[in-house]
Formats: sequence, structure tokens, C-alpha cells
Amino acid sequence: MARYDFASDNTAPATPEAMAAIVEANSGFTSGYGTDAVSARAADLVRGLLDVDAEVRFVASGTAANAISVAALARPFEAVLAHEHAHICTDETGAPGFFGQGVGLIRLPGPSGRIDPAALDAAIEQPDVSYRQPAAALSLTNATEFGTVYSTEELERLIRPAKARGYGVHLDGARIANAAAAGFDLKRVAALGVDLFVLGGAKAGMPPTEALVILNPGLARRIDARLKQAGQLPSKGRFYAAPFIGMLQDGALLRHAAHANAMAARLAAAMPFKVVHPVEANAVFVEMDEPTLARLHAAGWFAYRFLDGTVRFVCSWATTEAAVEELSETLRTLI
Amino acid sequence: MARYDFASDNTAPATPEAMAAIVEANSGFTSGYGTDAVSARAADLVRGLLDVDAEVRFVASGTAANAISVAALARPFEAVLAHEHAHICTDETGAPGFFGQGVGLIRLPGPSGRIDPAALDAAIEQPDVSYRQPAAALSLTNATEFGTVYSTEELERLIRPAKARGYGVHLDGARIANAAAAGFDLKRVAALGVDLFVLGGAKAGMPPTEALVILNPGLARRIDARLKQAGQLPSKGRFYAAPFIGMLQDGALLRHAAHANAMAARLAAAMPFKVVHPVEANAVFVEMDEPTLARLHAAGWFAYRFLDGTVRFVCSWATTEAAVEELSETLRTLI
Amino acid sequence: MARYDFASDNTAPATPEAMAAIVEANSGFTSGYGTDAVSARAADLVRGLLDVDAEVRFVASGTAANAISVAALARPFEAVLAHEHAHICTDETGAPGFFGQGVGLIRLPGPSGRIDPAALDAAIEQPDVSYRQPAAALSLTNATEFGTVYSTEELERLIRPAKARGYGVHLDGARIANAAAAGFDLKRVAALGVDLFVLGGAKAGMPPTEALVILNPGLARRIDARLKQAGQLPSKGRFYAAPFIGMLQDGALLRHAAHANAMAARLAAAMPFKVVHPVEANAVFVEMDEPTLARLHAAGWFAYRFLDGTVRFVCSWATTEAAVEELSETLRTLI
Amino acid sequence: MARYDFASDNTAPATPEAMAAIVEANSGFTSGYGTDAVSARAADLVRGLLDVDAEVRFVASGTAANAISVAALARPFEAVLAHEHAHICTDETGAPGFFGQGVGLIRLPGPSGRIDPAALDAAIEQPDVSYRQPAAALSLTNATEFGTVYSTEELERLIRPAKARGYGVHLDGARIANAAAAGFDLKRVAALGVDLFVLGGAKAGMPPTEALVILNPGLARRIDARLKQAGQLPSKGRFYAAPFIGMLQDGALLRHAAHANAMAARLAAAMPFKVVHPVEANAVFVEMDEPTLARLHAAGWFAYRFLDGTVRFVCSWATTEAAVEELSETLRTLI
Repeated sequence: MARYDFASDNTAPATPEAMAAIVEANSGFTSGYGTDAVSARAADLVRGLLDVDAEVRFVASGTAANAISVAALARPFEAVLAHEHAHICTDETGAPGFFGQGVGLIRLPGPSGRIDPAALDAAIEQPDVSYRQPAAALSLTNATEFGTVYSTEELERLIRPAKARGYGVHLDGARIANAAAAGFDLKRVAALGVDLFVLGGAKAGMPPTEALVILNPGLARRIDARLKQAGQLPSKGRFYAAPFIGMLQDGALLRHAAHANAMAARLAAAMPFKVVHPVEANAVFVEMDEPTLARLHAAGWFAYRFLDGTVRFVCSWATTEAAVEELSETLRTLI
Repeated sequence: MARYDFASDNTAPATPEAMAAIVEANSGFTSGYGTDAVSARAADLVRGLLDVDAEVRFVASGTAANAISVAALARPFEAVLAHEHAHICTDETGAPGFFGQGVGLIRLPGPSGRIDPAALDAAIEQPDVSYRQPAAALSLTNATEFGTVYSTEELERLIRPAKARGYGVHLDGARIANAAAAGFDLKRVAALGVDLFVLGGAKAGMPPTEALVILNPGLARRIDARLKQAGQLPSKGRFYAAPFIGMLQDGALLRHAAHANAMAARLAAAMPFKVVHPVEANAVFVEMDEPTLARLHAAGWFAYRFLDGTVRFVCSWATTEAAVEELSETLRTLI
Repeated sequence: MARYDFASDNTAPATPEAMAAIVEANSGFTSGYGTDAVSARAADLVRGLLDVDAEVRFVASGTAANAISVAALARPFEAVLAHEHAHICTDETGAPGFFGQGVGLIRLPGPSGRIDPAALDAAIEQPDVSYRQPAAALSLTNATEFGTVYSTEELERLIRPAKARGYGVHLDGARIANAAAAGFDLKRVAALGVDLFVLGGAKAGMPPTEALVILNPGLARRIDARLKQAGQLPSKGRFYAAPFIGMLQDGALLRHAAHANAMAARLAAAMPFKVVHPVEANAVFVEMDEPTLARLHAAGWFAYRFLDGTVRFVCSWATTEAAVEELSETLRTLI
Repeated sequence: MARYDFASDNTAPATPEAMAAIVEANSGFTSGYGTDAVSARAADLVRGLLDVDAEVRFVASGTAANAISVAALARPFEAVLAHEHAHICTDETGAPGFFGQGVGLIRLPGPSGRIDPAALDAAIEQPDVSYRQPAAALSLTNATEFGTVYSTEELERLIRPAKARGYGVHLDGARIANAAAAGFDLKRVAALGVDLFVLGGAKAGMPPTEALVILNPGLARRIDARLKQAGQLPSKGRFYAAPFIGMLQDGALLRHAAHANAMAARLAAAMPFKVVHPVEANAVFVEMDEPTLARLHAAGWFAYRFLDGTVRFVCSWATTEAAVEELSETLRTLI
């Protein structure tokens, strides 16, 4: 039987807390398009989590939330600076260009998913020329695609020069819960100068939902029209909001993320292959040749090879110690 | 306390069948992006409902499903023929133009939401000129925005000349369940020549989900890339698919729709205001002046004035006879 | 032999002044993309004509210049207010939606091509709702599509409420020379609050070229990247700029426009059909039934039927008194 | 005084033949939008040059012509394969993404501007996955950005596997005249399987104009609406067509290109810096460090550093032997 436990954190089911909140919200008639009481309460909880006064919307898709953010910060003839392995660059089928009508991506290098500050500086110093899309925004991801976690200071170092140029800042927080569980302080996101923040739901153990937090109030104008046109303003908004209530009202979000991180640490410790990137959140990237990966697949365990050539294992709220043990044993047989 | 019972059919909660299916599907790890067994079973049930062999995808948003369909059938310098009061023309914030990069809408008249065949013929006969977006597709809605239901023959009459010109055909089925409960034969959709069919979930009593049925196999190529880029390919696909299992495996979809239609008929019968459009599905449109509508709102009941000047009341699976009675009584006090 | 003299003002050749300037500019090597001395001098002349300090760019296409302007003033989920018969609404194949990724057009009525101020006020007072593209800009045309000319006061009346709402203002000046020759003061365009002004070249007797005047300096940032991406930043910029030198350095622009207007007045005076719109610039619109128009075409004279049902005759710098006489005679034979 | 002679081939004026044709075409009234006799004759000459029966349109911008081509061959969720240094990848401000609403570019390596066939094969063999834009078309450039010329056999080698996959093929011929003068057979373009061919005007010595040759007749449908919406269907079409008459009716196009190529060969022979790429057309790329380039600029000669780090000198129809000598002398002083 196929095992998707470690293929991604979106292969897991939703948490009991998220599901219970949906079931509870599913009662009575409400107004539509996010104007209901469930959406209001969920937004309050998000604001409390971040200690901000900001507009919050709940949308179906992280891809869309990221692309809408990018398109709000850069015009079609401009570009967004991002890590070359950021999700928006590699895994979203060109969604930024679709939502942003050709908006460009300037891909920056940097070890283990973190942007190299010097590369950022060099990109920012590029002179504007008419035949190239000049940078207008910076997109960051925390935890990164390679399971590392930016510290607040590291983010400050990247955001400061971008802000000095008047660039907007987008933070892809598909795995921000894992970053927070690893020590990243969510209450400092706003002070960092982030304009648009996507607070991830799906990978954190919710059904499909993401919270779009509009930290820059100037970007909130007509946001509902923006989302509606893009197919991201659900008529039945409570279904996207409720999981956040379940996950935020008693700390389940960070509790589950801490578990996922702990499972990744355990897997890394037992890993018989070379671990390539620091294991700071919920994923383990290892060196593994193609025949070995094929044998792993043949043994029923799915894992993906990434663009940097490593093979990734991801833990989630639902990962069990037993599964880590099972996988580790299988891996040991492959050496 | 505010009453949204009749404001729309998307103010209702999800049906017990849909919710049970979600809860049931929320177990274990699965592969992502709609490749899971839940999605496969739901697609089978949709195919069975329509008696077709077609690709089926489950997406979050009817607006997106419609806009993606339109963009698949007409290029940016072409246009889609639709009823002037169709949802894509009036209620989706220009989503067809956004997804279709400026694709045009040619608005056709017709009584009670049905396109006037003569107007369609005249539009089709317009010669191509370089300075105007020529028609390339026909978009239909059943049940219509005004709660009327096209018969198969009426649809054939509209589709035939469009197909003769090589146009694609899109069917917005946000309320197709209500049409089916009113006698429309779902198993004839494919034979009618529809290329892309959006089988509505949300208004039929599901959480946000719609089934995109690709009846023209030529349009299925790379559909997953299309949906992913547009933010409509959920990683956790089972959550969009499961409600369709709950609603289709034992006939709940049509049963609930029949109830909604019956409630609308009951409301129409008790309605003290002039009913403007034939009540064939789950909505009642009446003549009501602005002061009266204000008094209805003051009495706590929400209802919307439509673009044709009428006021709309919509019933859903969750509408009770008691609520119809309550509303009717309130309405009688307003005359 | 076919006669296109009155079919449009873009059927005429370029003026001797425009051609001479091109020939003169075609000497030696220059820097590209509008950074050359010819472009600089032409921009100075445009600034002098308007008595403004503004960025000026020369582009190939009025359609593109208009659409780029609209897209700079309204986002995809917003709309532009324009006369229902404005060129951007009826004759540019949906270019605003293409360049603006679905940006909407709100079509306003008004007699003889001028927007009815009350209709504008009503549109502006529409409340924002998420399912409709709210207005963000006002697009005006002077002279209008029906050959009438807005006075400064009339434009003020329309622009004031739009500006009060924070809307941007675009002025399509494809026939601004004709308006100026009819008394419209070009030096007041900036004070009116226009943000983006397209100063027409082609219809005024130049080869394909239009001057995009960026009166709102905030919109000039990265304008060259914008134009380059849109295919409107010519490498050999001098060819778009030179005609403006020829037409502006000694007043040829207004002199030729005055001639065109005078020819239209002469044609109107001799017109045996009912003139429908006031003849204030260079066009005459008449009532003419279909068989009569067919006979006119059969007699070799081309003229177009417009969306309001009238038939249009346009004069240009190249229209001769003899041609007016010839056409008038032919028209008299058709009564 | 600044010298732009070698900065690009678009710094040169238009040829006498092109200008004479414009002056000659500028007579009398004609029908608009490319339906005139001048446009018809120019299209015939283009067809004769290529020995094809194809639709031909004359547009203002090579950037637009390329981007429109790419957008015709690949949908927003697909991508185009091109050399990593192709003009569409590096010098058009993301125009393909703008015209193609996010259409992707897959950048392929290869020496001196030619795509490495093995890299192409590898790209074509990539499996379709939903999260990445799959290739749908191949874009080629001849002469290449580095002044090399593909032979027919080399193009066949690249086109064959692309066609076998059903990909469309675009040929950017901004410098096709230089390729032809170097031996490339223009009459074989169609047989190669090219679908859309941009036959360059501006760099060959014309004022801004390019011929878009639609070799695949299926792509010609509604091309005028496509161009009009994109701001590339000029009302006064004769001005874009006439230069091609001047350049094609007596062989001026190839004659001038041969001269440009000869000047490049002469410059290469006299070049005191290391020539990096084979000099097969009209450009010379050399190794030059930054201080040396600065001194060249200080001496009044403009030349650009390219993305591969080399410095480029381009010759044109207007390059004189004297200028080559002058530049060479200056260069010798810089060593």
C-alpha cells in the first residue's frame, strides 16, 4: 500500500481541531462572501496571533494568495525578487505571471533556501533599463522551501534595503507555523515591514484555506473585488475561516507544528543518508541517487527529488513516531 | 436577529450528506492535487450522473470555473455570447476578462434570464471586423439567474447555430441541480454539444466546491497545469471532491434541490407581491418598491434587488416550511 | 475608382510638413528608444503646445496609448467610466481589457458623444460591491466620436466629481487638433486635472504616431519599461517624434485641423441629408437609410454607418473643396 | 560628439530605398488598417522573397510581433523554449509574459547564441507536471543574438523534435537579412516548419516596421482583431508596408545586409581585442574589461556589454569603411 506520509505536508488529513470548527460553523444561515461572524472571529484570532490591526481574508489557495500578493506589489513591467527555489518560482506553474500579467521573477541564489544578502544587494543596485523588468518587490518564504528558518534578524537584513528602495514585501508563510514553532516570533512580522503575508493553513493541518493578511492598509482597498475577480472570495466564507478558529483558539496551530518539527528532527537523527540542509522546521533533505530513490518508491514510500537534486521528506501534524521508525528502517535497507 | 434564509442559496449551511462525506474522507495520508482515491470516486459519480466519459476536476470557485471555461473557449480578442443578466456578466467582477486577458462579453437580451434565440442569431450573423471582438463561444446558464429553467429543446435551439459556426459552448450549472429537479435531463448535457460544464456544488448545499466537467476531450490537455496556475488545483483535493460523494452516492443532490424548488413554489403561492418571472426552480422574483424593501430589511430579512429591478428570494435545501411561513407573514405586513 | 476621402481622417496621406520632418530627421546615427535629439525636440514642442512640464513619449498606436493609459489608472478589478460610443468602448477590439487584464468599462450615455453629467454622477455614486468592478478612472474624448467638442467648462463639470473621488482622468485626443481649431484651449488640459493625455498624430495628418503626455508625474515612473513591454517603445524613436516637429514648429497642426473643420462645415452646409449631430469639428453625421448608403457605396464613395445608426463623413487636412463639391453632388443624386 | 555607429543596428537611419518608398506611398486617400494597395504589394513582395503563400501583416514593433507570436503558440500555463540569451528572454521587458498573460520561458543554453540540441532534447523530454509550465513552442532567432547564423540543417535539427511533439515554432528574424546575406536560404523557412516568422525591418534599415508572416494558415484566423487589440494594426497601414516595397523590389534588403556583414568582418579583422563569437553576420563580440569600456565611452563611442560579459559592436547598412577604420584606431589606443 502506497505511503504518502512523508511526500509532503499536504498529504495529511486535517486536524481534529480544524474539522471540529468546520462542523461547528456549519449551522444556520449567514451572510456571504466573508461578511459572516465566523469569518470575523477567525480574523480576530489571526490578528491576535500576529498582534496587528490588519485586514484578513481567507482564501482557498496558497498559490493564488501568493500570486495576488505579488501582483499587488509589482506591475506587469516590473519584477519580484525571490529565492530561485521559492515556491512562486518553481512550483506554482507561473501563477505570478498569470495573475500579474507577465510580472517578472528575479531569481536569487542563497544556501538552503535563504536568499544570499549580497545577491539581493546586487540585484537591488541594478540600474533601471527599459528593456528589462526592474525589481519592485521582495518575496520571502519562512520556513523556506528547504526547511530552514529565517531569524528575524536575517529577514530584517533582507527587508531593509528593499524597503529603502520603496519595494513592497511579500511573505509566503505556507509553513510559517513550522517557523514559529522553531522560534520565529509571529508578532514581529508586521514590524519587519511585510506588506502582504500569507499565513498558511493547508500545510499546517487545515483543509484548503490560507489567511491573506494585509499588513499595509493601503493595499486593502477593494481587496474583496480583487479576490472575487480572481475566484478567491468564497460565497460560503465560513468554511475557509472556521479551520483557523479551531487551530488558533487554543494554540493548536503551533502545537501541531512543533510536533511536525520534532518528527523531522527525529527522522534526521535516524537518517542513513547524508542530510544536506539544516533541519530547522519539518523537512529533511538528503543525498540519494536515482536507483535508490526508485527502490524507495518500489518499497511503497513516496518522496520527491527537488530542483537542487536532493530528496525531500516532510513531516506533518499527523506524522507518527511509528511512521518515522518504519521509514527509517526502510531507508536503512536501501543503503 | 438578521435572517439570511432567502438572501441567496449560498447562505445556507452544507448538507449533512456533504459534511459526513468530508469527515469520512479526512482520514489517512493521500497523494495530492486531485490524484487521490476520493477525487477519483467523486469524478466517477459525476460521470455517472451525466452518463459521460469525461475528465472531471473539483475546484474551489464557481467564478473561477466559469472564467476558466470562457478563457478556454475564446481568446483575448474574441468574445463570448451570454445573457445580459448572466452571472458571468453581472456578478463576477469581470472575472472572464481577468482570466481571459480581456476576452469580451456580448450581452444578449431575453425574457426571464433565457437568451432570445433571435438575438443570438443576430449576434452570430455579425460580420467579423478587426475593431470589434468577434464571438467565439456561447455561455449558457441553467437554471437561469431569474430562476427559470431551459428545456433541452430550448438549449438545442441556442446551441445549434453556435456550433454551426464552430463556437464553443459553456454551461454554468451553479443551479443545475434545481434545473434537474425541475425536469431537465442531466444525461443530455453532453449530447447537446456543451464543451465545458460547471456542475455547481456550493448553491446545491455543499461547502465551496464545483465540478468542472470537460466534455470536449480536446480541452482536457494540461488542464491540471491550467488549474494550478489559476489557483484552482487544491493540494488537498479530497476536500473538494468528498462533498460530491456525499451528495451523489444516494441521490441527495436532486432530493435537496427538489425541496428547494418546492419551497420556492410555496413561497410564490403565498407571495403578496407580484411575481415577475416564472417560478421554475428555487427563486422568486417580485415587484417591490424601495421603501417596502427598506422595511423588509428593517424587519430583519435580507433580500437583494436585481439588475432588472425586481427583488429576489431564494430557497435552498435548508429552507423550512416554517421559514417560508414566517417570511410570508412579514411580507403581508408590508403591503 | 474608390473614394476614401470621407471614410475617415486616417485615409489621408501625411502632410508635407510631417513628411519633410521625417526626411530631415533621417540622417546620421542616433541613440535609440527615444533618447535621441529628435525625440527631445519633439517633446519640447509638445510641452510648449500644452504649456506644461511633463514627460512625453511618442508611440505607434492610439489604441495602445489609450489602453496603456486606462491600465495605468484602473486595476483589473476596477473599471473606467467612458461614453458608450467612445473609441475605447466600440472600436479598439477590447484593447483596454487586454492591456488592463480585464479592466472594466462602464458605458455612460450622453447626446452626440458627450457624457451626460447626471449619468456620470449616478455612476460615481454607485456603492462599491465585491461582485462588480468599481470605477477608478474617467476617460474623455475631445473632439468626441460624433464630431462635437467639449468646452473647458463641460470637461471641468465632468472631471471635478471624478477627481473628488480620487479617480484618474484620461483624455483621448485622437482629434484634439480639431477640438483646438474649434476653440478648445490646449493650454488648459493640465489644469483640468487630466492625468494622461493622448495627443493624436495620425488623424491630424501624421504617419502613425501619437504623443503620450504624462501630466501626472507619479505615472511617469518606469514608463519606458511599460512602453517597451507593450511594444510601444520604438528603437528608432526619431521616426515617431519627427512628424510632431514638422507639425508643431510652425503651427501646421492647428492650421490643418482648421482646414478639416472648415471642410466639414462646408459639407454640412451642402448636405442634402439630415445632419444629426452638431458639426463642431471635422465630421458630419447624417440620417441615411441602408439602400441609400448602398447606392453611395456603389457610386464609389466609402462612408461608415455608426453605432447610433447615423452615417459618418470625415474631413481631413487633405480634403479639398472640390472633393466636398463632388461628394455633395453625388449625395444630391441619392435623395 | 557621441558616436552611435556601432552601438546597434537600430541607431542607423533608414535606407534611401525605404524612404523613397514611403514618400512615394504618401499620396492620395486609401482604405485603412492594411487593406490598401501598398500593403498588398508589400505583402506580395514578402511572399515572393520567401516563396510562400502566407498571410503577411506589417506591424510597428518587433517586440510586439515576437510576443504576439509566442502568445499564439503557447497558452498562459505553457512555456516557450528559447535560447537563454534570445531577445525575447533578455531584452523585451517580459513582453511574452505580458502579451501571453504569464506564458513561461524555458531558457536553453548553447554556444554563441545557438541552442544546444542536446539541451533542447532534454527539455522536450521533461514530463508534464501540473506545477510547472510545460513547453508548447520553440522560439528561434536567426541571425542569433551573438551574430552567428544557423544553417538550415541546424534549424532542422532543432525544429524536428519540437514538431514531433506538436510544438509550434516561432522564428525571430530581426536580423534575418543578415543571415540571408550570410547564406541562409529564405525560401526554406516555410519548409522548415516555422509557424510564425517575424521578418525584421528596423534593424535591416527601415523605419520602425516588421513583417509578421503567418506560415501556418490556422493561425491567421482573426489575426487583424488580434493585432488591433494589441495596438499593432495601424490605421495608416501603408506607412509600415511601403519600406518593404523599397527594400524588396530590387534586392536592397540583401544588398544592404551583405554590406553590414562585410563591415563586421572588416571590423573583426582589425579588432585588437579578442573576438569571442564567430563573426557570421553583422556583429562583433569581444572581451573587454570595464575600465577599457569606460575609456571607449569616454572617447565618445557607444557599445554595450552583453549578458555573457562580452562587448558588442554592430554594423549596419550605413556603416562606412571610414567609421570602421576610426573605431579600430580608437580601439587600438585602448589596449
